[in-house]
Amino acid sequence: MTTAKRDTYTPETLLSVAVQVFNERGYDGTSMEHLSKAAGISKSSIYHHVSGKEELLRRAVSRALDGLFAILDEEAARVGGAADRLEHVVRRMVEVLITELPYVTLLLRVRGNTDTERWALERRRDFDHRVADLLKAAAAEGDVRGDIEVRLATRLVFGMVNSIVEWYRPDGHGASEREVADAVVRLAFTGLRAH
Amino acid sequence: MTTAKRDTYTPETLLSVAVQVFNERGYDGTSMEHLSKAAGISKSSIYHHVSGKEELLRRAVSRALDGLFAILDEEAARVGGAADRLEHVVRRMVEVLITELPYVTLLLRVRGNTDTERWALERRRDFDHRVADLLKAAAAEGDVRGDIEVRLATRLVFGMVNSIVEWYRPDGHGASEREVADAVVRLAFTGLRAH
Repeated sequence: MTTAKRDTYTPETLLSVAVQVFNERGYDGTSMEHLSKAAGISKSSIYHHVSGKEELLRRAVSRALDGLFAILDEEAARVGGAADRLEHVVRRMVEVLITELPYVTLLLRVRGNTDTERWALERRRDFDHRVADLLKAAAAEGDVRGDIEVRLATRLVFGMVNSIVEWYRPDGHGASEREVADAVVRLAFTGLRAH
Repeated sequence: MTTAKRDTYTPETLLSVAVQVFNERGYDGTSMEHLSKAAGISKSSIYHHVSGKEELLRRAVSRALDGLFAILDEEAARVGGAADRLEHVVRRMVEVLITELPYVTLLLRVRGNTDTERWALERRRDFDHRVADLLKAAAAEGDVRGDIEVRLATRLVFGMVNSIVEWYRPDGHGASEREVADAVVRLAFTGLRAH
């Protein structure tokens, strides 16, 4: 059985186990021993795949960050009015967050104690700035209201989107990815009040 | 010096030190030793005021919960159309969150490992339900759009409001309490799009 398990192990499955353990115990509270137990393989087998837990963290948060940054390269994020491009980016952020839920959850919990964590925080900030720039451009084009300061509006929209990791459960019982994305876009762009 | 310190200690100052330590180390990671060191008084002096760290937790989250529930008793939360009452409640939630920042931060981080934590989670859920009921009433009165499911809308509004504890710094440099409350109400009720 042990051999069979070991044979089926890939860096991908190891990563998925590691992310789960990091999210449960916190990155700081996770040892190689915990990862070895959760994955059902020896520590030396893990070291065969990666240099240590920091490499697993880097791979995991990279997956979340790559998903988010890829949004900005999509045609609908590059072409058209800034408000429409922003709306596309916000919708896609929700979709990426739900598709990559454990990876984005980990990214949002990163605190900055190691080089990898500081690098992840830096890339998160870059992404936030790109979205803030889009909001600023939309306000300059007159399609987004000017009476909410750009940085504050960006923080509140991210607050709303990022809160999804706290309550979304992909068990098929609650709202679907599409319903959540629609709700966020409606709330953020046209608000709760009936018109 | 020790005597002077001890003389000036009140349950109130002890609570404020405890909340700070709980927020820094996590409630689980805080020992009476940590509290004693941070407060600069002996453990037996702490036990003179409270039965232990769980009582400090209960007092701290009660302060946050009492502040939130008191909003619902305010006249503007009880009289008038449901959408206006909801808007008042959301604005006041932001104000209470900022005024009681460390206490609400602690409340939002409670995880449910002890009786006190489970009780706090239960009261948070009660509050969420009261706000969701207001949203439902506003939708029934036709003043809030019907195309965002009530529970989902409630979660997103709370997500936006609660995110404030992650970035708000009461140092006088960033947005004021009033600016943040205005931004949240504008964004949640009428959205980013210019009309």
